[in-house]
Amino acid sequence: MKDNITIKTLAKELNISIGTVSKALSDSYEISQDTKQRVWDLAKRLKYERNPAASNLRSQKTKTIAVIIPEIANNFFSLAINGIEEIARQRGYHVLIYQTHENTELEIAFTDSLLNGRVDGILISVSSDTNNNAHFTDLVTRMPTVFFDRVFEDIDAVRITTDDYDSAYEATCHLIECGCKKIAYLGALNNLNTGKQRMAGYKDALEKHRLTFNHGLIVDSHRDEAENYDRIKNLMLNEKPDAVISSIEDLALPCYYVCKEIGINIPRDLKIISFSNLNTAPLLNPSLTTITQPAFEMGKEAAGILFRILDKKHLDPNESITLKSMLIKRDSTSCI
Amino acid sequence: MKDNITIKTLAKELNISIGTVSKALSDSYEISQDTKQRVWDLAKRLKYERNPAASNLRSQKTKTIAVIIPEIANNFFSLAINGIEEIARQRGYHVLIYQTHENTELEIAFTDSLLNGRVDGILISVSSDTNNNAHFTDLVTRMPTVFFDRVFEDIDAVRITTDDYDSAYEATCHLIECGCKKIAYLGALNNLNTGKQRMAGYKDALEKHRLTFNHGLIVDSHRDEAENYDRIKNLMLNEKPDAVISSIEDLALPCYYVCKEIGINIPRDLKIISFSNLNTAPLLNPSLTTITQPAFEMGKEAAGILFRILDKKHLDPNESITLKSMLIKRDSTSCI
Repeated sequence: MKDNITIKTLAKELNISIGTVSKALSDSYEISQDTKQRVWDLAKRLKYERNPAASNLRSQKTKTIAVIIPEIANNFFSLAINGIEEIARQRGYHVLIYQTHENTELEIAFTDSLLNGRVDGILISVSSDTNNNAHFTDLVTRMPTVFFDRVFEDIDAVRITTDDYDSAYEATCHLIECGCKKIAYLGALNNLNTGKQRMAGYKDALEKHRLTFNHGLIVDSHRDEAENYDRIKNLMLNEKPDAVISSIEDLALPCYYVCKEIGINIPRDLKIISFSNLNTAPLLNPSLTTITQPAFEMGKEAAGILFRILDKKHLDPNESITLKSMLIKRDSTSCI
Repeated sequence: MKDNITIKTLAKELNISIGTVSKALSDSYEISQDTKQRVWDLAKRLKYERNPAASNLRSQKTKTIAVIIPEIANNFFSLAINGIEEIARQRGYHVLIYQTHENTELEIAFTDSLLNGRVDGILISVSSDTNNNAHFTDLVTRMPTVFFDRVFEDIDAVRITTDDYDSAYEATCHLIECGCKKIAYLGALNNLNTGKQRMAGYKDALEKHRLTFNHGLIVDSHRDEAENYDRIKNLMLNEKPDAVISSIEDLALPCYYVCKEIGINIPRDLKIISFSNLNTAPLLNPSLTTITQPAFEMGKEAAGILFRILDKKHLDPNESITLKSMLIKRDSTSCI
């Protein structure tokens, strides 16, 4: 008898959808307390048992996962977290969020403290000042871990990234097609594959179009905002580029301010493209051309894989998945 | 002998600053592992003991606090969290962040699960669909809790808010001084004191200037973004206001899009002010006049009080603290 009781049986008996029953059994916040109680009562009365993987999971642990990211005040990461939470909620999991503020020591403190059994798994996007990955080598052997966006290549763990090389290549080509010949690059994340790939895409696109790579046109980001502003201003005054590719949003906005201050007209005098998930990009003056990463989808994908690992259903412990970003052309690169 | 060993002794002996010793003793991420080890070794060797409050705290608990907020993809909250983390770090505490997505059931699930001793205290900004505060009444008797920004008046806990009434009043007066006579109000958080105070400030400023309050000029926010867009578009087409005050940033941006779509010129045809901590407000087309809350300071203040409560040094369990917001006038309200 017991074996015949399925989610379908419960759904039919209560005259509600299978999805609702499933969510109620996972204690989803989307389901009202009343409905959950009715589902739980019936499940108990009929001695319904969830499938082994699910009940394993249920009995297993903390029902909590951690997300370690550099900054929440960043549209990419807040969207990615929303994607992660969507999946976590479906599984009845809580999500703890930790910010490293790009500080490796804090990152190490977090990963260390999470090994105490507070969470079942970790999703992480690494800090930009992390040179040494020793703490991750240890972590991945002791805790289900998925890296997303900012990853290390030489760690045995699942990695979800976007097509950084292709995106930067395509963006540079777009600027060249608009007639730009002196394209500056605002770099960041140089320790990480993310940063290296973006820079490589930029360089290769220049080469492909027989434009010379010029070190004077490269500005590296600094921790200090005022310093970044000065570096960009110096670039504009001294090198007078006709275009800029910004590898992070936090360098594109100072670019706008510098142009305002010294009277550079965007896009007439200078075209700008930025890697960015800024929700106000279409409303800026002028609207900003962006390479937009599928942040929400990335979060969902990363969380989905983490749960498959927790369910022991994920087979390749070293899988690398690449999602596609999108070049969204707006006024900051319009050819006048 | 033991009684004479102070932080100063350690600092002098190691030839480093008192601040560094203090941070090292709190296991601050700001101090290198080497230095910490040297401080700890010496402290042990000299049998240094921290003052009772500090060692109490150290021995006491989880060294973790939780922050429960509606959304991290919101500049106000991400700044507030940064303020909270600044204080927490000085104390060697970790911060766990929980998003309710404006969902009371999730809020209840979080507060319930936090009562299990995972954290020492909670900072919370309540969800906008929270009508019933029963879970908080229970919470505040069992866990040090500080409410910030979105608070309930009738709960015995410390509350940190901004001057919502005064800010909305001042903003409305600014529009009236610019010659506006038909000022619409985009409302939100109507269950909460935050929302009520903002609306009251708007109403009273109208009355003071003998302008009639008109229900047709009030738009309430909805969960669904497309629905908000339609409501604002209907407002613009049917009521043709000459100004808008938006009580949340999430309603101001759709306003810009609606104006773009139906050809309303900001600020000539319509002036806009929004409660907002948007970092791109000065770069929008046109730049947006904002009522900017001291988000970072609020986070610091809230965390500071929570730690005083944990230290048993905070005397008024029902204190209400109000910080001042700032009206920053930009092009969206310029008088042409």
